[in-house]
Amino acid sequence: MLTELKREAYEANLALPRHGLINLTFGNASAIDRNRGIFAIKPSGVDYAALKPDDMVLVDLDGKVVEGTLRPSSDTPTHRRLFIAFPTIGGVVHTHSSHATAFAQAGREIPIFGTTHADYFFGSVPVTRKMTAAEIGGGAYEWETGNVIVERYAAGKLDPLDFPAVLVNRHAPFTWRPTVAGAVEVAVATECIAHMALMSLQLEPKLPNIEPELLNKHFKRKHGPGAYYGQSK
Amino acid sequence: MLTELKREAYEANLALPRHGLINLTFGNASAIDRNRGIFAIKPSGVDYAALKPDDMVLVDLDGKVVEGTLRPSSDTPTHRRLFIAFPTIGGVVHTHSSHATAFAQAGREIPIFGTTHADYFFGSVPVTRKMTAAEIGGGAYEWETGNVIVERYAAGKLDPLDFPAVLVNRHAPFTWRPTVAGAVEVAVATECIAHMALMSLQLEPKLPNIEPELLNKHFKRKHGPGAYYGQSK
Amino acid sequence: MLTELKREAYEANLALPRHGLINLTFGNASAIDRNRGIFAIKPSGVDYAALKPDDMVLVDLDGKVVEGTLRPSSDTPTHRRLFIAFPTIGGVVHTHSSHATAFAQAGREIPIFGTTHADYFFGSVPVTRKMTAAEIGGGAYEWETGNVIVERYAAGKLDPLDFPAVLVNRHAPFTWRPTVAGAVEVAVATECIAHMALMSLQLEPKLPNIEPELLNKHFKRKHGPGAYYGQSK
Amino acid sequence: MLTELKREAYEANLALPRHGLINLTFGNASAIDRNRGIFAIKPSGVDYAALKPDDMVLVDLDGKVVEGTLRPSSDTPTHRRLFIAFPTIGGVVHTHSSHATAFAQAGREIPIFGTTHADYFFGSVPVTRKMTAAEIGGGAYEWETGNVIVERYAAGKLDPLDFPAVLVNRHAPFTWRPTVAGAVEVAVATECIAHMALMSLQLEPKLPNIEPELLNKHFKRKHGPGAYYGQSK
Repeated sequence: MLTELKREAYEANLALPRHGLINLTFGNASAIDRNRGIFAIKPSGVDYAALKPDDMVLVDLDGKVVEGTLRPSSDTPTHRRLFIAFPTIGGVVHTHSSHATAFAQAGREIPIFGTTHADYFFGSVPVTRKMTAAEIGGGAYEWETGNVIVERYAAGKLDPLDFPAVLVNRHAPFTWRPTVAGAVEVAVATECIAHMALMSLQLEPKLPNIEPELLNKHFKRKHGPGAYYGQSK
Repeated sequence: MLTELKREAYEANLALPRHGLINLTFGNASAIDRNRGIFAIKPSGVDYAALKPDDMVLVDLDGKVVEGTLRPSSDTPTHRRLFIAFPTIGGVVHTHSSHATAFAQAGREIPIFGTTHADYFFGSVPVTRKMTAAEIGGGAYEWETGNVIVERYAAGKLDPLDFPAVLVNRHAPFTWRPTVAGAVEVAVATECIAHMALMSLQLEPKLPNIEPELLNKHFKRKHGPGAYYGQSK
Repeated sequence: MLTELKREAYEANLALPRHGLINLTFGNASAIDRNRGIFAIKPSGVDYAALKPDDMVLVDLDGKVVEGTLRPSSDTPTHRRLFIAFPTIGGVVHTHSSHATAFAQAGREIPIFGTTHADYFFGSVPVTRKMTAAEIGGGAYEWETGNVIVERYAAGKLDPLDFPAVLVNRHAPFTWRPTVAGAVEVAVATECIAHMALMSLQLEPKLPNIEPELLNKHFKRKHGPGAYYGQSK
Repeated sequence: MLTELKREAYEANLALPRHGLINLTFGNASAIDRNRGIFAIKPSGVDYAALKPDDMVLVDLDGKVVEGTLRPSSDTPTHRRLFIAFPTIGGVVHTHSSHATAFAQAGREIPIFGTTHADYFFGSVPVTRKMTAAEIGGGAYEWETGNVIVERYAAGKLDPLDFPAVLVNRHAPFTWRPTVAGAVEVAVATECIAHMALMSLQLEPKLPNIEPELLNKHFKRKHGPGAYYGQSK
């Protein structure tokens, strides 16, 4: 069932250690079939080297396992929450990539300092508020993790496709895009811009964000009706 | 004799350079057979590329070489001290991995700033006091290195499985777990969280440790009777 | 047509990810045939793994595509501007290499702190002024990017071969040399010296640039009539 | 002639990029036959990938090329100066490895903060004074580079085998040992301890050097008549 979807999710999961975004088993990727309302996600705590496409677990938007003998990732409710709240996204990636996680741990957004960042995001990479003790300990921790993300986007009136990554405070990044392969690409970009932002801050601790014209130009060069980057538009 | 134990220790030793935790010959891993009270450890100063499973030296808990033609690691008495003091551990790993060692050299614990850390430790990674001139020069330096570790855990009432790594002041990390493969995993995690903590401190020099609820949640998600991460529990 | 030129440009583009200078599809290289006034450049947004020599697009100095079925890099007008303004250069490389980009984002030149730097540059790596809203939004953004580079060299009376790399403010480095292979080498060197400069600044925030005698010695050792480094001079 | 010596020098040169110590063609290694007073050294500016054992150039202690069709490394007079001044060394390595060079550029010794450092050095890694304009421009720059090293060891009464690496101010490290393979090992260790010292300084800007007892213990554990590390002593 959904062989192609499972393969996409599988390929995305394998791409994470290959891009140096994942140590050990920190991280997971999922892809959704919007027609059926079913997503494929990595099983929990399985070593990447041992992973097979058929190990992907199929889960519906109510959280029910539809197919699969392994337990799905413990972060499954976070993925599910995002798929429900953000109907334009088709894939979600979660990593603990080092530089992005350093910002998440510090509760700091990744400030937008250059065009590399503006090629992917229409502003700084947002960070959620800290979760409350009730949200953490109330029995639905991973679902509530999704909730603080959704809350952040609602409060900031942020379009998930304009801001395809978020830092969960004290935790790490989640990224998404219309496809899971795109979510992997954003995960790579997020780690890269976090590294560069950290170094720019070392050089200029008070560095302001980039000018609105440049942000607008670079983001629109790649996204939306006026895009002229790449071959397909 | 104890072919399987030697193979486990051998595999763990080879994993250290593969994970980028070891330069040159800095570091070693050992695995114990608790029934016989014998552990297998890397020979001293042998290049990882040349290592064979049968090169592992078998040593008993009195420090006597039971089998092996090569001299055991000069750190053998530290491993032995840990195996005696911490009966729940089955493997010990010692590395000079760069970021963790930077904290050890500075005499600083690795502060617990996020969930990556809390997935492995029930608090900050402890650091020992400095060793005295008598402990260093008295003829049993490596045994005394084990002693300052044991002293730190006794003084802090720390369970070795809740805190499966320590930084020896001015020296480097030691890690352990019920299996030596687990001790390697903790060594990878320790290096990773040290790197992230260093960067979070650059962003926020006064960053406080994570909130107790989040620590509790993440550690318990992976460890103990309520664990629900992975496939085996 | 111009098979050899396309191969040179192709090889240079492939060298960028191999040297770790490029993540994803950030970056591009071009090589010019001065006799014909035609340059070969990477197509826009194509994955490096899928690139073939024949994918290189041939463009003339008026910006007209002379050969090729793919759209040329969106940065083509910047390359064209540089080839027109700097007649001694034969190849241009653009990367978003992390350490150099950190300086560009901060609007800081890469200060010349040692002989590694002086082996490639006759002073600090210059940074352009920020671009104006009119330059960014006026419909010729990439051409204007070339213009701020040219302006910087005119204002500073800098010979492009003495300063074979520039940082575009808020953006990233461009490098060049008489050959595109040489421009790749400068891109590697620029990233390396940016990394070292960042660390030297951490050690000594007020570190002055190197002494003129040493700069002169090392640059002239490799460049110009008195050069005595390598085999070919 | 001296086939084995050329092979040793060749192997050492190849080891430098493999250990990540060398970018492009920055760096060189040489090995001396003390009986004949002849050393084998890398040719100048040749790409490591193209190097063959027979490309090594044989040079005597008067600086005369004894065998070889290629021009020897431009740093040959520095190697020669060291071989003359330090009769106990058998190989010399020069790199521009990033972290060690960051200290050299800043004119700072690498402070001895831990046992990793003490396993290789009997104190901080020394740095030379800056060279004068006359030394730089007087026509014997590379020989004078050797001279400031020799001056530093004489002034500090430093045994070259106790301090098997030096940082040339504004330049980069040179390392040595009784064999050129040993000099490569010290080059790896120097880069590693420079990285760790930089990070320890970020954590504790006023961190003092390690205590004399610990320095003594670790250095003597590996060096001299009381050594008990490794298999061969």
